[in-house]
Amino acid sequence: MPPPDFFFVEVLTFFADLFKAPAGNWWGYVTNGGSEGNLYGLYLARELYPDGLVFYSEATHYSVQKNVQLLNLRSIVIRTNEGGEMDYHDLADMVQMHREKPVIILANIGTTMTEAKDNLGEIKRILRRYAIKSHYIHCDAALAGTYSALLDLEPGFDFSYGADSIAISGHKFIGSPLPCGAILVKKNYKDRIGKAIPYIGTMDTTISGSRNGHTPLFMWYAIKRFGIEGLRTRAINCLSLAEYTVSKLQSIGIPAWRNPSAITVVFPAPSAEIRQKWQIATENGLSHIICMPGLRKELIDEFVEELVEQPVGVE
Amino acid sequence: MPPPDFFFVEVLTFFADLFKAPAGNWWGYVTNGGSEGNLYGLYLARELYPDGLVFYSEATHYSVQKNVQLLNLRSIVIRTNEGGEMDYHDLADMVQMHREKPVIILANIGTTMTEAKDNLGEIKRILRRYAIKSHYIHCDAALAGTYSALLDLEPGFDFSYGADSIAISGHKFIGSPLPCGAILVKKNYKDRIGKAIPYIGTMDTTISGSRNGHTPLFMWYAIKRFGIEGLRTRAINCLSLAEYTVSKLQSIGIPAWRNPSAITVVFPAPSAEIRQKWQIATENGLSHIICMPGLRKELIDEFVEELVEQPVGVE
Repeated sequence: MPPPDFFFVEVLTFFADLFKAPAGNWWGYVTNGGSEGNLYGLYLARELYPDGLVFYSEATHYSVQKNVQLLNLRSIVIRTNEGGEMDYHDLADMVQMHREKPVIILANIGTTMTEAKDNLGEIKRILRRYAIKSHYIHCDAALAGTYSALLDLEPGFDFSYGADSIAISGHKFIGSPLPCGAILVKKNYKDRIGKAIPYIGTMDTTISGSRNGHTPLFMWYAIKRFGIEGLRTRAINCLSLAEYTVSKLQSIGIPAWRNPSAITVVFPAPSAEIRQKWQIATENGLSHIICMPGLRKELIDEFVEELVEQPVGVE
Repeated sequence: MPPPDFFFVEVLTFFADLFKAPAGNWWGYVTNGGSEGNLYGLYLARELYPDGLVFYSEATHYSVQKNVQLLNLRSIVIRTNEGGEMDYHDLADMVQMHREKPVIILANIGTTMTEAKDNLGEIKRILRRYAIKSHYIHCDAALAGTYSALLDLEPGFDFSYGADSIAISGHKFIGSPLPCGAILVKKNYKDRIGKAIPYIGTMDTTISGSRNGHTPLFMWYAIKRFGIEGLRTRAINCLSLAEYTVSKLQSIGIPAWRNPSAITVVFPAPSAEIRQKWQIATENGLSHIICMPGLRKELIDEFVEELVEQPVGVE
C-alpha cells in the first residue's frame, strides 16, 4: 500500500465519516489537543454570532472557561444532574431569559469527571421551543467522542444530530504519545475566517500556525493498525473493564458507579495517600478511574486490594 | 550530571536569564510555537488593558492578525520603512490620535520577510512623549530573539529594555524537530489570569492545556549540548553565511541585501520555477533565504549557480 499524499487528510476523512460530516462541506485540522479544538469551535461560533451567549454545564472541562475568557465571550454556566449531565430545565430557563441573543452551546460528549453526555436532542428541543434561529452547537467530544461514534452509543452527537463542530483528542482513546486532537467543522462556517497568506502561498485558518507533523502520523497509524473493527473491539474492551471495575469496587463495599456506556468509573475519594500514590483525579469528594485502552485488569485488582486495607472517605 | 527535576524549568530559566527577566517576577511555559507565545502575550495585555489598542507594523507575521482577531482586540497597522522596520513617525501619529486608549505594542524582533527589528527605545520615547502611562510591549522574537540576545545585538529588546513579554520559537534557531517555542512574561501580570483547577490539584494558565512533554527535552538538549558559547558560535556562523550569501548573489548581479546583523538575505524574486523548486518564500516581489544553522555554503553555491542560468525578475 503506497503512503498517502497527506496523512492528516486521511485522518480527518476517517473522523469526518465517523461523525457523519456533511459531504463536501466539512473542514478540519489536527490540533495540539482537545482544548485547541474547543477554542476553534467557539471561535467559529463567535465569528458567526459575535453577540452570542455561550451555555455550558458546570461539569465542563476547565479549559472551556479559559477559552471563553480568551475569546471575550459572555457565558452562562448551567447546572448538572447528579450524573454530570446538563440540567435541561435550567438550560431552558436561561435560554428563555435571553431570547434576544444567539445561542452557542458547548455540549459535553463525556465530561471530565463522570463522562456524562449532554443530549443534543434535548438541546435542540429547547432551541425549537423558544424559536431560537441563530444557534451553534459545538461538541467537546475529547473524552468519549471516538468510541461513542464507533459503537453508535446513545445519545448521538454527530453532525447528523445537529453538531456544527466537533473536537476530539488523539492522546486519549487513540493513544498518541504526544498530545494532539482534531477539530471538524462545517466548511461554510470556517470560510468566514480564512485569510490568504501571500508569503507561503496558502491559507492558514488554524489557531497554532506551524503544526506538529508527527501527531497526524500517530493518529494515522492507529487508524490503519486497528482498523474500524479493531477500534470497536478496543472500545468494547474498555467498556467491559469499566463494568468489571464497578463490580470489583462494589464487592468491597465502595458505592462505585458509572454513567450508561461510560468507561469512567466514579467512587467516593479514597485517602489522600492512595490518591497521591495512584494519581487519582478528584473533585468535590469524588474520584474516578478512566478505563482507557492499556489499563489492565490486574492493575484494577491491585488498586482494589490496596483500598481494602485503607479507609475510604472524603477528606 | 543528574537529570533535573523539571527539564522545562531549566529551559525557561535559561531564556529568563538570557532575556534579563526581572528576578523573582517572571513566569513562562513551553508553547507549541511562536504563534501561541504571541497569542499569550497579547492575551495578557488585553487582560491588563481590556480597552487597549494594539499597534503592530505591516511587516508583522500574519498570525498576529489572527491572534488579534481571536482576542477581539482592536488594532492599527503601522507602516514600515523599506527594510521592514516600523515607521516611528507613523506610530507617533497614531498613538497621538488615540491618547485616550492604553497602548499595546507588538514589536518584531526579526520580521518574517526581512528580519527587521523594531526599536524599543524609539517606541518608549513615543510613549513618553504622549504621556501614555498604560502600555504593554510584547516582543515577537520568534525569528531573531535567541541569537540577538546571545550576541547582544542592537537594538536591545529584552525585559531590561522594556519588554513585558517575549515569545520565541524552539524550531528555528534552536532546531527542535517538532514545532515549539517559549513565552516569558512578568509574573505579576500573569497572576491576573490564573485559575486553580481542583481536579488536578494545580493551576493552569496556559493556552493549550495538555502540553507536549518532548519539546522541552529537545530545547533542553540543545542548550546543554551547545552551551551558551556553542550557541554563540552557531549564531556567528549563521551571520557569516548570510554575509557570504549576500556577496555571492551580488557577484552575479543580483541586488541582494540584509538588515544589520541579520541572517535573512533578501533579493528580487527569481522565476516561479526556481521559487517552487527551492521553496523560496516570496512576498510583494521579494524573496529571502534565512541562513539558519544547518544551511551549508555548498547549497548556497548550488542555488546561485542555478540562478545564473535563469532570468531574475518579479512575475
